[in-house]
Amino acid sequence: MSKTLSGNFFEDFEVGQSFQHATPRTVSVGDVSLYTALYGSRFAVQSSDEFAKSIGFDCSPIDDLLTFHIVFGKTVPDISLNAVANLGYAGCRFLTSVFPGDTLSARSEIIGLRQNSNGRSGIVYVRSTGFNQHGEAVLEFIRWVMVRKRDLEARAPDTIIPDLPECVMPPDLATKLPPIKVERFDGAVSGSQFFWNDYIEGEVIDHEDGVTIEEAEHQMATRLYQNTARVHFNEFLQKKSQHARRLIYGGHIISLSRAISFNGLGNAFHVCAINSGQHLSPCFAGDTVFAWTRILHKSLLPHRKDLGALRLRTRAMKDCQYSESREKSEIGNQTGNLLLELDYWVAMPVQK
Amino acid sequence: MSKTLSGNFFEDFEVGQSFQHATPRTVSVGDVSLYTALYGSRFAVQSSDEFAKSIGFDCSPIDDLLTFHIVFGKTVPDISLNAVANLGYAGCRFLTSVFPGDTLSARSEIIGLRQNSNGRSGIVYVRSTGFNQHGEAVLEFIRWVMVRKRDLEARAPDTIIPDLPECVMPPDLATKLPPIKVERFDGAVSGSQFFWNDYIEGEVIDHEDGVTIEEAEHQMATRLYQNTARVHFNEFLQKKSQHARRLIYGGHIISLSRAISFNGLGNAFHVCAINSGQHLSPCFAGDTVFAWTRILHKSLLPHRKDLGALRLRTRAMKDCQYSESREKSEIGNQTGNLLLELDYWVAMPVQK
Amino acid sequence: MSKTLSGNFFEDFEVGQSFQHATPRTVSVGDVSLYTALYGSRFAVQSSDEFAKSIGFDCSPIDDLLTFHIVFGKTVPDISLNAVANLGYAGCRFLTSVFPGDTLSARSEIIGLRQNSNGRSGIVYVRSTGFNQHGEAVLEFIRWVMVRKRDLEARAPDTIIPDLPECVMPPDLATKLPPIKVERFDGAVSGSQFFWNDYIEGEVIDHEDGVTIEEAEHQMATRLYQNTARVHFNEFLQKKSQHARRLIYGGHIISLSRAISFNGLGNAFHVCAINSGQHLSPCFAGDTVFAWTRILHKSLLPHRKDLGALRLRTRAMKDCQYSESREKSEIGNQTGNLLLELDYWVAMPVQK
Repeated sequence: MSKTLSGNFFEDFEVGQSFQHATPRTVSVGDVSLYTALYGSRFAVQSSDEFAKSIGFDCSPIDDLLTFHIVFGKTVPDISLNAVANLGYAGCRFLTSVFPGDTLSARSEIIGLRQNSNGRSGIVYVRSTGFNQHGEAVLEFIRWVMVRKRDLEARAPDTIIPDLPECVMPPDLATKLPPIKVERFDGAVSGSQFFWNDYIEGEVIDHEDGVTIEEAEHQMATRLYQNTARVHFNEFLQKKSQHARRLIYGGHIISLSRAISFNGLGNAFHVCAINSGQHLSPCFAGDTVFAWTRILHKSLLPHRKDLGALRLRTRAMKDCQYSESREKSEIGNQTGNLLLELDYWVAMPVQK
Repeated sequence: MSKTLSGNFFEDFEVGQSFQHATPRTVSVGDVSLYTALYGSRFAVQSSDEFAKSIGFDCSPIDDLLTFHIVFGKTVPDISLNAVANLGYAGCRFLTSVFPGDTLSARSEIIGLRQNSNGRSGIVYVRSTGFNQHGEAVLEFIRWVMVRKRDLEARAPDTIIPDLPECVMPPDLATKLPPIKVERFDGAVSGSQFFWNDYIEGEVIDHEDGVTIEEAEHQMATRLYQNTARVHFNEFLQKKSQHARRLIYGGHIISLSRAISFNGLGNAFHVCAINSGQHLSPCFAGDTVFAWTRILHKSLLPHRKDLGALRLRTRAMKDCQYSESREKSEIGNQTGNLLLELDYWVAMPVQK
Repeated sequence: MSKTLSGNFFEDFEVGQSFQHATPRTVSVGDVSLYTALYGSRFAVQSSDEFAKSIGFDCSPIDDLLTFHIVFGKTVPDISLNAVANLGYAGCRFLTSVFPGDTLSARSEIIGLRQNSNGRSGIVYVRSTGFNQHGEAVLEFIRWVMVRKRDLEARAPDTIIPDLPECVMPPDLATKLPPIKVERFDGAVSGSQFFWNDYIEGEVIDHEDGVTIEEAEHQMATRLYQNTARVHFNEFLQKKSQHARRLIYGGHIISLSRAISFNGLGNAFHVCAINSGQHLSPCFAGDTVFAWTRILHKSLLPHRKDLGALRLRTRAMKDCQYSESREKSEIGNQTGNLLLELDYWVAMPVQK
């Protein structure tokens, strides 16, 4: 019997099946420094213990997306080692802040299956949850991935497609953040004078900055998350693939876009939820990533007056800067430059 | 109104104007490890808590230049986002050691302005100061940068050129270092048998080692410092620029030269001051950096017998090793290979 | 007198000579994060403080090979700065776990010398030992390197070739590990269901994953270890060398192979000893590294029932996947793709 894990294939999954994923991981200030070096994130709450304390935290929480990537990475060996593509995310909620010293682990449950008509692969719907060392859920999300079959003759399972929430509803956002001392959330210190009150539904923000990605960067990032998906690391095999080169982990584009979005959304210190995310084109080393954001919706958060939520749609494009006409031509990704469309909620202080 | 910061242009500055720069940053052992990985620094005081304690520190301070880069990085969004070039530094003093756990912030004041005769840009003179979480100044420096005008018709300000110190004077050097137990500063442990007494004014040290820079390295370094200057990250736009590629942050060359200088200056554990620094040619990924140093001057430090100061002039060259004839041909940077000339003071133990 | 260290040449060594190597180094969680980012290691004991505590450690020890690289790096300036090649390792024993906060230092003794018949270089046999801040030996190993002569006329020393152990014997393995609570070493958490009992002598495990190495990665790794060997960093000089490019530090391949070996050896949480190691071909940026392992021998560990030892031979190949025929053609490295052959002992829990 082989000692090597070859991952699960489509026919290995069944609805209701659950996984305790391997390799818990203690997060440290070393991870925080690497995250800064990889993306250049500048949100003051995550950057400064002093700032975090002054507004109500015990110390700086780690970046929400670092939590996401680590939890996501744990699911890969069981769920998506044989994936053709990561098709989408839904219902991703950040439930509890994670701090250096916390240990993250992950579990998943299969909630849907649908074999493709070609009989060679199928779509697996998975709900994954990340936990800290106290057993508290810190993060949950649904994703669906297209997974190859090992045995093309294997019988197709009954098709079960779960109800996927189009959007996380405001009552389900961000309830465990500490009360924020908004009067101490100084825009001169945080880097932006714009608070929740200042944003308008429909407004578009061009984040302007573009960042070119190197192979060493995305490989180091993806390994930091202990994500083992082979397409990111193995040039020798990738040369024989459709794209003839390594693919960049989609989460790397999410983090890069979020860091770029600081310019225009500098007080959006917490990602409450990801409603949906789609990777529309592959990204390769050498591509320069730009991002812009449309404010889709504003909402108050339940039971709190300190913070409001903004529902954002951030688009990341490669090798092209924002313009209005370009925003229109993105429809259907006609240019092939649209890398990512991310629909998510952020929390921002409400000024009195 | 745009939510995005586009940075200040020349006509936005006035003498006397002050800035509290955004995004305080807590420094950690994670930053120390990355700094080691990026430059290979080997000064024993910064490398070993045990060594640092044995000679009089509470623990290893962080590298002085890491402090410099973080403070410098904070000034970029307000001062030099629209800079054409960083022209020089003066009067840079390292005032208090910074330790992991400290939180750095920065303020600046405009101390001079001079519009260029072409009317398209001008020189901005700035004094910047870095602070720790106790409000103590840890670092101050003057720099001058050439900044573009947004509106070429904008009126030229009155020309004010500040008095720039040619050199930080010994009485202003390094007063807050703890008393150093020189008898425990063991050359076998620190990696050099040469102490302050052994250096001679006029002596030239070829540091021998050459280091090739990669895009991923300088990008990770510059992001670690949360420095947002676009020329370092955006290959897509840089391709259309004069150099047709990304420029490496000048501070990266300073840190690399300092790390290379360990070979010959291994006991120069503290940078007291930078008298002046000039980036004479741009540096690009793929360049191999060499460095050599001339001992310009020796001085005792005020009120202390444990440490002396050496005034050094370190030159960093690309793709060329030291030779005497080469040192002469550097005059006026005839070869175009001279990257950096740095005039600075270091502290070194005085042997009895 | 030159202040620069040019390293020792063959004629500078004599048997019995000892070295206290420079630059002690405090290891931190920052180093742990970088190690994860560089290799993607997933052994649960090193990844999770909670897991480590649950089975009997005070917290996660650092990766044994990180200890090895740091100690090895310290020996370079004195031993191998003028080395032509690192020929082999023997008798490498990991004696005491190292934890974040520990400070490592190193000493070496010359135990053998043999001038080559060409009179231009010779082989230096060295025993090196790493210590923590309490003076406990954490690691010892013998290596032999071919070192150039400075003066070809220098007299050949008497040839002394030390007895080199072909293999570290089981009674000398891993005695200082804490008692391991094997019942809490949960395979679902650690990522492998296979324990010491499950492995069979002669079994071959193809670890499947291949990883492509970038220049920035191996340079950052090698600097993290403060290893100053010039061939890894200086493209300008290397272009004139036999290989016309930078060589990757052999230890980088060892760590990469060990991380890759997780897939099939996920519960081999501790490297007890390295019996022998040979770098058979140079490795360059752009190469994709694969690895497979043969179980050479199984042994119980003295005085303990919780852990058993597996003697492994791991081979790392570039740009080629495992196959049986390939394993045969490796003999004598006919393909030139064999990078590394490592013969070592790992500890693994014994299931009751």
